[in-house]
Amino acid sequence: MDSRQSTSLPPSKNSAPHLLVGLDIGGTKTEAMVVDRRLQVQGRIVLPTDATHPDALVASTSQAIYRALALAQANPQQLSGIGVGVPGQVDRETGEVSMAVNLNLERYPLGAALTTEFQVPSYLENDVRVAALGAYRWLRQQQPVQNMAYLSIGTGISAGLILNGRLYRGSNGMAGEIGHIVVDPQGETCRCGLRGCLETVASGPAIAHRAAPLMSLPGAAPLTTATVYQAAATGDAGARQAVAQASTYLSRAIQWLIMAYDVEKVVLGGGVARAGDAFMEPILSAMSQMRAQSGLAAAMLTSAKIMGLPPDYSAGAWGAILLAQKDWRQDS
Amino acid sequence: MDSRQSTSLPPSKNSAPHLLVGLDIGGTKTEAMVVDRRLQVQGRIVLPTDATHPDALVASTSQAIYRALALAQANPQQLSGIGVGVPGQVDRETGEVSMAVNLNLERYPLGAALTTEFQVPSYLENDVRVAALGAYRWLRQQQPVQNMAYLSIGTGISAGLILNGRLYRGSNGMAGEIGHIVVDPQGETCRCGLRGCLETVASGPAIAHRAAPLMSLPGAAPLTTATVYQAAATGDAGARQAVAQASTYLSRAIQWLIMAYDVEKVVLGGGVARAGDAFMEPILSAMSQMRAQSGLAAAMLTSAKIMGLPPDYSAGAWGAILLAQKDWRQDS
Repeated sequence: MDSRQSTSLPPSKNSAPHLLVGLDIGGTKTEAMVVDRRLQVQGRIVLPTDATHPDALVASTSQAIYRALALAQANPQQLSGIGVGVPGQVDRETGEVSMAVNLNLERYPLGAALTTEFQVPSYLENDVRVAALGAYRWLRQQQPVQNMAYLSIGTGISAGLILNGRLYRGSNGMAGEIGHIVVDPQGETCRCGLRGCLETVASGPAIAHRAAPLMSLPGAAPLTTATVYQAAATGDAGARQAVAQASTYLSRAIQWLIMAYDVEKVVLGGGVARAGDAFMEPILSAMSQMRAQSGLAAAMLTSAKIMGLPPDYSAGAWGAILLAQKDWRQDS
Repeated sequence: MDSRQSTSLPPSKNSAPHLLVGLDIGGTKTEAMVVDRRLQVQGRIVLPTDATHPDALVASTSQAIYRALALAQANPQQLSGIGVGVPGQVDRETGEVSMAVNLNLERYPLGAALTTEFQVPSYLENDVRVAALGAYRWLRQQQPVQNMAYLSIGTGISAGLILNGRLYRGSNGMAGEIGHIVVDPQGETCRCGLRGCLETVASGPAIAHRAAPLMSLPGAAPLTTATVYQAAATGDAGARQAVAQASTYLSRAIQWLIMAYDVEKVVLGGGVARAGDAFMEPILSAMSQMRAQSGLAAAMLTSAKIMGLPPDYSAGAWGAILLAQKDWRQDS
């Protein structure tokens, strides 16, 4: 408790702007989370994303913020900043979304639109980098860590890096885009044009695509990655084979991250990772095989370095809060 | 010129300590370079490394410093700091060499030995990281760059990283050890124990080993990488095949570095890179094939991002100078 704070008003009714909102905009849903000065969650909501048109996206995004504020029993004037994670490339300086295929945005000033709507500063960043910040918060609540990689496995694969305690973006905000590293030169052609990128063998769609012909499937429902992992965990031989293959590639990706960045921890997240133990166990098993082969691997690839993000932890929304918080602190 | 400096004595005779020495200790030879306060080279020498015993190593290393000082017409009392690049793992804080197989050192206090001999601070770092610092100096003389990877291809393969303008070491000083990333899971067993590490297909010994059965060789002299590149450049089909294969793997390694760190430049160096154009041309050709396949590759893997270090530039000795200089400036 801040002893200097007026006790005549409850914190959420304090008229000075003191609330932050973190927005995690996904291709299908948007999460908005409102926190107070002490990072206590005051309101939180998940709404469908409307990406039919840029105006519709601004409207559905704004609605998520208004509804989260309403749940916090707060008004928009109490907001002091907005952090936003966007599935695509952003220009952090201008708040422009350079390209977000799943949101149908190209060179769109999303930051300016939100700032106009709410009259507060807004801060945009790529969603995986934002989730890396959120994952770093979660990790630091457990132990001190300076270097961490967050590996997101979902529709795509990419990594967000915290190096020397700070988000590392690279020269063009593209650091950690390891989904398009070639791992199977004779493999399938990737949507990027290269053959055998990591995404062609270990992303959610790739796992489902590879498992389908191997599994004995009732009906014609489209196969989800969650179904594949569930079937593998309950003994379906085809599903196990598809999961084992993807896990071997993912264990090598983890090896790259550890060798490339020498991080203390690799935190796994994203849609595919939500399968929990069914997801983690085959990866840990593949890493254990690497350790058995090599002293260097045994020293570098310890299982203590690998962690799965709790499925119910909102890494994206928390990271967006941290994005906004940084500036908020500097301004105050 | 420093206007406060006494004009009654030439700079090299100034009695105040003002000289730095950079040492690049290799498995076969050691380079020592003496510079003055303005980083002008005053003396430089290359001597054989004597790694028969730790005492012999300290003696041959000290001799290189004494001889470089003599060439600079300076005495040891004018020295203010020593920077050292060591082919192995070092503990930067204690100046201990944790492990340097080629120097027969294990947990040896090399920094303390040099400090005792010359009565000045000494600063140790892994040789590839030191060379990365030196390569960064060379690059910055041409253009402003914040993020750079130095890829050393020699007996081993590893990378040194400059991120946000500073040397990035990682949590255990192992960042950039990409020589042991698995690139050919069914390939040959690496000295580290894993199968198909990058070093098994693209290091100097690997290139010579793979070229030997493909080339029409007169006599029984052991094949050097330089000979392979020379033969490839003059049309030997077997040598060309071996070089093309290694270059394909190296172009993928460059892709990893660019995707992983989003660096502006990848600078290539090390013994194998000394083949110059014969080394660079097939790598640039392999990268051009990747660009032709993929828009993402075309955007990220531009040939302007790849540079070869001039074969006569002493990246290791210059980097060692910079290591020593940093502290020197802080102390003065």
